[in-house]
Amino acid sequence: MPRQRMGLWLVGAKGGVATTVITGLAALSRGTVPPVGLVTALDPFASLGLVDFPDIVVGGHDIRGGRLIDEARRMWTESRAITPDVLDAAADAFTAVEARLRPGTVVAAGDMIRSLADDVGVARVESPQAAIERVRSDIAAFAAAEHLRHVVVVNVASTEPAPARPIPADFAAIEPLLDDAAACPLPASSLYALASFAAGASYVNFTPSTGATPPALRLLAARHGVATAGCDGKTGETLLKSVLAPMFAARHLEVMSWVGHNIFGNMDGKVLDDPRNKATKIRSKDHLLADILGYAPQTHVSIEYIKSLGDWKTAWDHVHFRGFLGTPMTLQFTWQGCDSILAAPLVIDLARLVERAQRDGQCGVLDWLACFFKSPFDVTEQSFAAQFALLEQWADATARSSSSAV
Amino acid sequence: MPRQRMGLWLVGAKGGVATTVITGLAALSRGTVPPVGLVTALDPFASLGLVDFPDIVVGGHDIRGGRLIDEARRMWTESRAITPDVLDAAADAFTAVEARLRPGTVVAAGDMIRSLADDVGVARVESPQAAIERVRSDIAAFAAAEHLRHVVVVNVASTEPAPARPIPADFAAIEPLLDDAAACPLPASSLYALASFAAGASYVNFTPSTGATPPALRLLAARHGVATAGCDGKTGETLLKSVLAPMFAARHLEVMSWVGHNIFGNMDGKVLDDPRNKATKIRSKDHLLADILGYAPQTHVSIEYIKSLGDWKTAWDHVHFRGFLGTPMTLQFTWQGCDSILAAPLVIDLARLVERAQRDGQCGVLDWLACFFKSPFDVTEQSFAAQFALLEQWADATARSSSSAV
Amino acid sequence: MPRQRMGLWLVGAKGGVATTVITGLAALSRGTVPPVGLVTALDPFASLGLVDFPDIVVGGHDIRGGRLIDEARRMWTESRAITPDVLDAAADAFTAVEARLRPGTVVAAGDMIRSLADDVGVARVESPQAAIERVRSDIAAFAAAEHLRHVVVVNVASTEPAPARPIPADFAAIEPLLDDAAACPLPASSLYALASFAAGASYVNFTPSTGATPPALRLLAARHGVATAGCDGKTGETLLKSVLAPMFAARHLEVMSWVGHNIFGNMDGKVLDDPRNKATKIRSKDHLLADILGYAPQTHVSIEYIKSLGDWKTAWDHVHFRGFLGTPMTLQFTWQGCDSILAAPLVIDLARLVERAQRDGQCGVLDWLACFFKSPFDVTEQSFAAQFALLEQWADATARSSSSAV
Amino acid sequence: MPRQRMGLWLVGAKGGVATTVITGLAALSRGTVPPVGLVTALDPFASLGLVDFPDIVVGGHDIRGGRLIDEARRMWTESRAITPDVLDAAADAFTAVEARLRPGTVVAAGDMIRSLADDVGVARVESPQAAIERVRSDIAAFAAAEHLRHVVVVNVASTEPAPARPIPADFAAIEPLLDDAAACPLPASSLYALASFAAGASYVNFTPSTGATPPALRLLAARHGVATAGCDGKTGETLLKSVLAPMFAARHLEVMSWVGHNIFGNMDGKVLDDPRNKATKIRSKDHLLADILGYAPQTHVSIEYIKSLGDWKTAWDHVHFRGFLGTPMTLQFTWQGCDSILAAPLVIDLARLVERAQRDGQCGVLDWLACFFKSPFDVTEQSFAAQFALLEQWADATARSSSSAV
Repeated sequence: MPRQRMGLWLVGAKGGVATTVITGLAALSRGTVPPVGLVTALDPFASLGLVDFPDIVVGGHDIRGGRLIDEARRMWTESRAITPDVLDAAADAFTAVEARLRPGTVVAAGDMIRSLADDVGVARVESPQAAIERVRSDIAAFAAAEHLRHVVVVNVASTEPAPARPIPADFAAIEPLLDDAAACPLPASSLYALASFAAGASYVNFTPSTGATPPALRLLAARHGVATAGCDGKTGETLLKSVLAPMFAARHLEVMSWVGHNIFGNMDGKVLDDPRNKATKIRSKDHLLADILGYAPQTHVSIEYIKSLGDWKTAWDHVHFRGFLGTPMTLQFTWQGCDSILAAPLVIDLARLVERAQRDGQCGVLDWLACFFKSPFDVTEQSFAAQFALLEQWADATARSSSSAV
Repeated sequence: MPRQRMGLWLVGAKGGVATTVITGLAALSRGTVPPVGLVTALDPFASLGLVDFPDIVVGGHDIRGGRLIDEARRMWTESRAITPDVLDAAADAFTAVEARLRPGTVVAAGDMIRSLADDVGVARVESPQAAIERVRSDIAAFAAAEHLRHVVVVNVASTEPAPARPIPADFAAIEPLLDDAAACPLPASSLYALASFAAGASYVNFTPSTGATPPALRLLAARHGVATAGCDGKTGETLLKSVLAPMFAARHLEVMSWVGHNIFGNMDGKVLDDPRNKATKIRSKDHLLADILGYAPQTHVSIEYIKSLGDWKTAWDHVHFRGFLGTPMTLQFTWQGCDSILAAPLVIDLARLVERAQRDGQCGVLDWLACFFKSPFDVTEQSFAAQFALLEQWADATARSSSSAV
Repeated sequence: MPRQRMGLWLVGAKGGVATTVITGLAALSRGTVPPVGLVTALDPFASLGLVDFPDIVVGGHDIRGGRLIDEARRMWTESRAITPDVLDAAADAFTAVEARLRPGTVVAAGDMIRSLADDVGVARVESPQAAIERVRSDIAAFAAAEHLRHVVVVNVASTEPAPARPIPADFAAIEPLLDDAAACPLPASSLYALASFAAGASYVNFTPSTGATPPALRLLAARHGVATAGCDGKTGETLLKSVLAPMFAARHLEVMSWVGHNIFGNMDGKVLDDPRNKATKIRSKDHLLADILGYAPQTHVSIEYIKSLGDWKTAWDHVHFRGFLGTPMTLQFTWQGCDSILAAPLVIDLARLVERAQRDGQCGVLDWLACFFKSPFDVTEQSFAAQFALLEQWADATARSSSSAV
Repeated sequence: MPRQRMGLWLVGAKGGVATTVITGLAALSRGTVPPVGLVTALDPFASLGLVDFPDIVVGGHDIRGGRLIDEARRMWTESRAITPDVLDAAADAFTAVEARLRPGTVVAAGDMIRSLADDVGVARVESPQAAIERVRSDIAAFAAAEHLRHVVVVNVASTEPAPARPIPADFAAIEPLLDDAAACPLPASSLYALASFAAGASYVNFTPSTGATPPALRLLAARHGVATAGCDGKTGETLLKSVLAPMFAARHLEVMSWVGHNIFGNMDGKVLDDPRNKATKIRSKDHLLADILGYAPQTHVSIEYIKSLGDWKTAWDHVHFRGFLGTPMTLQFTWQGCDSILAAPLVIDLARLVERAQRDGQCGVLDWLACFFKSPFDVTEQSFAAQFALLEQWADATARSSSSAV
């Protein structure tokens, strides 16, 4: 029996996260790197029959021109993050994936992202419905050409501004607006989500953009028999917040203020230099403290684009808390993490886990993926440890049911 | 019906932790401070019928002379940690507790601690058995004089050196040695533990000293119908390790090295300036990483006495880890915590929880108290979140059984 | 011969810096604290015959109501920075100074500062000329009543927005506008400067507000035979920049980016929460790097009001630099300084030094005071070490000329 | 007229600093990297006629076997500090220099260094005199073979233990001991210094080892008409101390304690794991604070070998200081510098500057090189800014005298 292959369709396929996914899958497939950073390579996931690395076929959309390999090499030239030998070894993968890339849409993506769209193939004016149909057809063609069991679309494009207008709660109220760009409140990321569902693909939102977040869209996933999860990958400062804040709560230490200052210099950072795009991101990074602590300390999150840092996200957090007898104390941390290096293995994890769940017939929102996200769908629990326990429980249940199935 | 009172007997009653306990209980009893920092003031413990603050009577042993109030005031004069108004308001408490203090023992406490013993009442030469009997009788007299339901002895004295000789696994082999200081391998903290058990008191070791850690002693607790727990209160850097290391494990990030550098200037720090005493402490701070990670990264823990810091334990930790594709990354944190302020509420928590368990007939090792300790008895789980879940489960079970009892 | 006394007139006399000056002068006068933090207490200034602490008489303007002693006590209650015993010992000083305070002006002080003006005596509408005349007369009355040799006015009020319109280079073009608040481009701080000069008092601007900075005003000082210096006291993060940047220059290390993130919670911070006021401050903190390095690295300065920190200015700076063979490296620092505690002794220093210079007949801009300021008048040298050498040279020359005069 | 070439003879020629010097000179000679990190590439040194990079011929001693190119590549494989393309471009240089390397001596180098000596050519037993003669003859042969104007020997070998016995103040008392390894108190580094002088070469000690530090040896340099300077290159934490401590002094802020914690993982770090070697280093890093401040705060310096860091020296410093009215404040910094990358350009600077001075007839101790060293010879000034001014003054005087000479 031939091995079954899955598709991983990346929206934002020339960005740092996407090129790191492609580079990493090439290295993992050859076995030249250990699977460090991959959650699904840990013991609890060993017996689930997840898709093997060589069986993950990558394609995607992007709005930028330029060669994939040149984008990938920035992780070396600008960031010293992926070494030249690893990049060189992925040359064939870049060629293969490049042939599968299609021009994305800039409909309702905001001025900043629109200004980056230099791929000649990008239609600068099209109706939302036309964009959805084009994207759907790209994904469907990919699945057919590559004989894929299932396709998981993952949004790793730069952050959009929040929608300017409210999105109706019922999809029936949205549908008629899709023919008119001026009337339609959906941003580009939501169009990709709709296109994915229409193509029979699952959709994972690794960014704080709108995507499938509106209830009207979230519900559509189940109707199409596909899965969805999101949103906003939790890779650095917010991950630490979701790990540290429960400690303050459990020890009854009163957090008076929590300040986080983030600096980095990749394309994402550049896009966040637009205050409209930044607002979306900050909201996603900030809300969890009150959820965990049960009260709202003063918080401040800033994100600044500092070119020299490349893909290195450096975060300084200052936590001012009060202990017994009112004594003020301080915890500070500095996180020096490489954004794409932290994100890419989680994208691979999500693709493997979503495919596995969908294979079992799970569809709609996969809430047990909460530990991957800053703003998890349908989950109020924000403690990382508790979220990770949800994932382990799913793995456990899946392992048991598949062994009993045999 | 008169309210039932419990005793909290502190070994090291003039130290920073003990004087903060006394100051804090005075303020909590009057209701002039909120119970910030107390785990037992959190919701899950509200309905357990724990002893109220005014019903905790404090006494203890110390080897140092000097007035309790003068020791207590160092938290202001040397550390700016407890404000003068709070200290002034506890003046009556200091007087009351001082009348209940008894001279401790320096038998087998090590040269450093022996050099600090300036209380004229401290017997500098006595057999281990004589020390045990004297301590037992002090505790028993305290319980009788104050009409206490139960006494919990908590060791908050400075860290001893590790025992020079192995301690027999069977108490029958130890007992005959108690009459001969030269032959007996037990350090002072273990004599206090034996004395507590003999007095019908529970014994909690909040320090890395030996105490009831040897299996031969741990088993004795149950035989005397009392409880025991330990050891080494987890208040700062190690607490953070037990919170952060599980994150690295869950994300499959490979910790290459973890360096912790601790500086502080209180009496504990002074005692740790003796390398023999420091070795005991460092061992307790360092082992949990390998337990959590499943492999042993290079670690280094240093502790230095820096006088100007007073009770402010400042820790700098540098975690060097490797992510996807071998990329090295760094997390650093600086913890500026006031040691006694962090420890004291936990001592009160432990007293209340141990008394509650003993009231229910639980005796021997209380392993569900693991989240309070760096080196918990009979528990291999070192993740703080998992340890805290154990405590919550006990609270839950206790709440259910007491409501069904009614 | 009676000792000669000088006046120190504080604009913003109820703020943190001012109340710390008053508290500190009381303690220094009694000799209960060592003169730590005072530059003029260092050896090179010992023989200059500077005015003694008890001979400095303090008065000032403020726009806020409330009692001086209550404002002063915030340094304890909100910040734990000045201890209660030191504040209590200054009670007489607060009473004495309070009697000398006069209501300030809010003419052209900006909306934010205007909103804080709750002193019933503050005229909310008056022409600039009327404000000048009122302030001048307050200062002159102070000098006469207290029989002062000289008065030094120091602006320690919160930062104003920058002037909305250009200020003419010639005072002759400004003078006619003073009768019309709507036409006059001068902000409040400049009106105080003009009033000081008119009263025969020297004027020092310890803030980034406009004050005597416009050339037209700077020139006036000499014409009135008084001295002026400024602006913006260099107390924390910028002090460190002026100390560290010369090291990078001298070692030929290329600074690629320098990010500074400042958080604090005092009244100054609150005023800086208005973006118009903050812009003035950031400009003053940021320009010196290019001056020192000879090229302009990417810089970012943020200032955020975090209430829980009170007077504690915490700054995190991240310096990303490139060394030999292009290797990127990093220096980070965290500064935890108490703003008023750092500033107040410098205000006393400036008063003593300006008075001494004026006594010698020096008037106009005192450029050798550069080391005290972020944006020194008439000095392009921004290296702290070089600036401090200027001060030492002045002290040297003054010491020599006064000994030869004798 | 053919260009005049100089020799740079490295003791420890296979270490990280040396291989970075060789790599860097190759790149500078081709002009493929800008001279970032080189002090002598700054403006004040432009007109001094310093030797050009291609005219610096490198040779040296080492005690370790292995190929130079393999040692050099560790800067990439272990530290990601020098990129592969830069290393590849230096391949010819490695070959050329390797042909000029000679086996060093382990006489009196200490057990740790002796254990590293795996070059088969290293004589493990020889008299000090024989070692001197062998080294002298190697240097002289190098100078002759390469037709060098002058040779500067720079010690960049790992740190030795301090001499076990006092070194006589008069060389006449040392000379007779040179024939007897057991009687001679000089460590290996001093033998190299003597050999250099005997060969007519200048000797610069970039390490804290003894070298030419003893007065008896320092005086010899002038007698041989050569120059000497040292010791212990100031590249990171101590550089910052010499920059920051003068600020605390100038602002009259009282440093109560200064703690420095250094971690790194290169060969130097491994050698410092031996407490005897480490003691030498710590002494050199610690003394300057009291010199600058005029009083001795509590200090602590620790150095730990953490393998994963490779050449990345990470230092955390915690400065606890007291300001006005006794308020304690804190400055912390973290320095993440690549040790060899910081040191190598300074070695090239020293070679060029020493050669230039010697060309002008300067011999003996060159005290104006103080800014390069932690423990400068014959200079008590420890402020970096003041030390750098000495260097600029020399450059100025040299530029003036050479232009007047023309």
